[in-house]
Amino acid sequence: MATVKLWSDEEVAAVPAVKAVFDDIRATRKSDFVNNFWRALANQPALLERTWSSVKQVMIEPGVLDPLTKELIYIAVSTANSCSYCVHSHTAAARAKGLSGEQYAEFLAVIGMAAETNTLANSMQIPVDREFLLG
Amino acid sequence: MATVKLWSDEEVAAVPAVKAVFDDIRATRKSDFVNNFWRALANQPALLERTWSSVKQVMIEPGVLDPLTKELIYIAVSTANSCSYCVHSHTAAARAKGLSGEQYAEFLAVIGMAAETNTLANSMQIPVDREFLLG
Amino acid sequence: MATVKLWSDEEVAAVPAVKAVFDDIRATRKSDFVNNFWRALANQPALLERTWSSVKQVMIEPGVLDPLTKELIYIAVSTANSCSYCVHSHTAAARAKGLSGEQYAEFLAVIGMAAETNTLANSMQIPVDREFLLG
Amino acid sequence: MATVKLWSDEEVAAVPAVKAVFDDIRATRKSDFVNNFWRALANQPALLERTWSSVKQVMIEPGVLDPLTKELIYIAVSTANSCSYCVHSHTAAARAKGLSGEQYAEFLAVIGMAAETNTLANSMQIPVDREFLLG
Amino acid sequence: MATVKLWSDEEVAAVPAVKAVFDDIRATRKSDFVNNFWRALANQPALLERTWSSVKQVMIEPGVLDPLTKELIYIAVSTANSCSYCVHSHTAAARAKGLSGEQYAEFLAVIGMAAETNTLANSMQIPVDREFLLG
Amino acid sequence: MATVKLWSDEEVAAVPAVKAVFDDIRATRKSDFVNNFWRALANQPALLERTWSSVKQVMIEPGVLDPLTKELIYIAVSTANSCSYCVHSHTAAARAKGLSGEQYAEFLAVIGMAAETNTLANSMQIPVDREFLLG
Repeated sequence: MATVKLWSDEEVAAVPAVKAVFDDIRATRKSDFVNNFWRALANQPALLERTWSSVKQVMIEPGVLDPLTKELIYIAVSTANSCSYCVHSHTAAARAKGLSGEQYAEFLAVIGMAAETNTLANSMQIPVDREFLLG
Repeated sequence: MATVKLWSDEEVAAVPAVKAVFDDIRATRKSDFVNNFWRALANQPALLERTWSSVKQVMIEPGVLDPLTKELIYIAVSTANSCSYCVHSHTAAARAKGLSGEQYAEFLAVIGMAAETNTLANSMQIPVDREFLLG
Repeated sequence: MATVKLWSDEEVAAVPAVKAVFDDIRATRKSDFVNNFWRALANQPALLERTWSSVKQVMIEPGVLDPLTKELIYIAVSTANSCSYCVHSHTAAARAKGLSGEQYAEFLAVIGMAAETNTLANSMQIPVDREFLLG
Repeated sequence: MATVKLWSDEEVAAVPAVKAVFDDIRATRKSDFVNNFWRALANQPALLERTWSSVKQVMIEPGVLDPLTKELIYIAVSTANSCSYCVHSHTAAARAKGLSGEQYAEFLAVIGMAAETNTLANSMQIPVDREFLLG
Repeated sequence: MATVKLWSDEEVAAVPAVKAVFDDIRATRKSDFVNNFWRALANQPALLERTWSSVKQVMIEPGVLDPLTKELIYIAVSTANSCSYCVHSHTAAARAKGLSGEQYAEFLAVIGMAAETNTLANSMQIPVDREFLLG
Repeated sequence: MATVKLWSDEEVAAVPAVKAVFDDIRATRKSDFVNNFWRALANQPALLERTWSSVKQVMIEPGVLDPLTKELIYIAVSTANSCSYCVHSHTAAARAKGLSGEQYAEFLAVIGMAAETNTLANSMQIPVDREFLLG
């Protein structure tokens, strides 16, 4: 259970600054569903607005990385940070963007391998090769 | 400085099990350069062999994710795990695979955003929406 | 569910070394409620005693940082370490010490920002400025 | 060494979008010194601008938490995330804001204690007490 | 709930590559019980096979560290990485290998102490003594 | 470089509370060498005293886990927490306690494997088997 109240649509409707963000989330995503992350942030209207504005800019507006790649990177970070909520929400988002079973299997292999070699490199305190440094 | 000896090519040449892996690294990558990670693992021949075999299978053999995407996922995990060596080596690898400045900027924005929202979700202990669970 | 038994008050009463700590927790906090953390540690009386003694000294005895500030620092660490139990218990403690909604919103903004910039600094492996080093 | 170029003042001067942010950093902080974090972010002007705007809003503009408290929370997160750069820069910032030796000692005691109890709670998988959940 | 389907024995029986691994898990452990970790990995047969082969080699085949020591090391890493599933499964495995209450208490004291001193060393950015470096 | 002064023997000698701890470190370890961790903590005499007292009790006084096992557990946690200082100091301590090359290789295999499976379990959010829960 959350450490904060999750706002219902009725509560959102009563606070214009929060309602404006929720309206934009729904319009941008073309869906009526607004997930708990935003319902929790609604307790902090300024943080809600800034966070949504950044997420929209970084994750939704077209860029040079394709949307599915961005979701996989997001899940990789969320897994390493043990954020159960974020792993669930972004794995669902990746599936909605077409993640196949084969891609997910390969993704899992990569993050597992990365975690293993991170641990090996950190435990042996391997110095960075000169070849990897910027000229 | 490493907690283990980094093997020189002469030392590698003297141990057939190690030399076989180094030869395969060089042949697979079509390069004479072998980075410190493998020179440290040379102290543990069985671990060296198993690790290279996995890295080759996961990161080098063709799959359904493109090689640059896999490198970005690798850097994301390595950053979250604070593995300085791995961040350096895989950022260099990503550049060698064509990472552009724009792609890197977008990648940084994604991992920064992920870390921020991970922290928000974990600090508010937001419950997973039923909509994100498998049917 | 815990990997260890959570001790009931009856079980506590039967072991003098454990009972002495529980009595001191209740007397110090002026409350009969003893939370699960201590009921789990009761399985390890020496660790229970040492941990309570440290917590009492660090978190409860008057110092130069005010009690609410210490709770916020505690939640910050607990969030970064993904300790769900600790986030819950210390957020409750912070509220009991008067944490306002505005303060919590600002706290969340700070820890989210810190996590984001930590990730950016670690991924770009930014060298420490000479100006930040001790003279 | 960084994985990106650190921009000199000359390079900054040549790119208006970057120069505008550096000018604002200097004006806001009333200091000519601009640390490496911003010189690294200069490679990504949009990220530079968004990050500075957030840092300014969260860390510099007056709020309900005092500036030194915010720095301590920042260091706590940075330590848990093993961000050497951030620990150095924000410890320097905390000192500039008046952190005393006694306060630092108490801060260290709190974050050490938090890390220890986080580990104990996570290893015993202690369930959250009902008393800590929102009514 | 998992982000993937957990395979039932019937589903396993229908895919020879998966069935072969499950048969080997049962034969190696001399038990009919196969835990959820493998039922989740069954969705990715190649990863399942490689992971089981590594776990068998590292954790089950006789080596120079005794089996209980390896489980304790495993729990230590899993706790630091906040892997609830792994803490549960390897604490159960350690108990099955004879972990006593006294050993567990001492183990908890060590990992708690390690986490505390890690935090102190990282927050003060203590330089490594020359005496600890390899000759 | 540290964020605090590292105390020289002369400075230690001038402060009785600090000198008492350093004397006990030297007597307990039967060595004149005192490493930087304690020279940094000397800035906070109360924390120095409490930390040394705990380290002595947990890591040095005889218990039910053998000293080398405790060092390996310590390194495992320190690696997962990316504490470079602690990895160096406790790997040196493990070697001083007789860690062989073969044991170190096996240790590395275990922590690498643990990190990999932690990541897999966390990314698939695998639910804990009922069989692993306490009766």
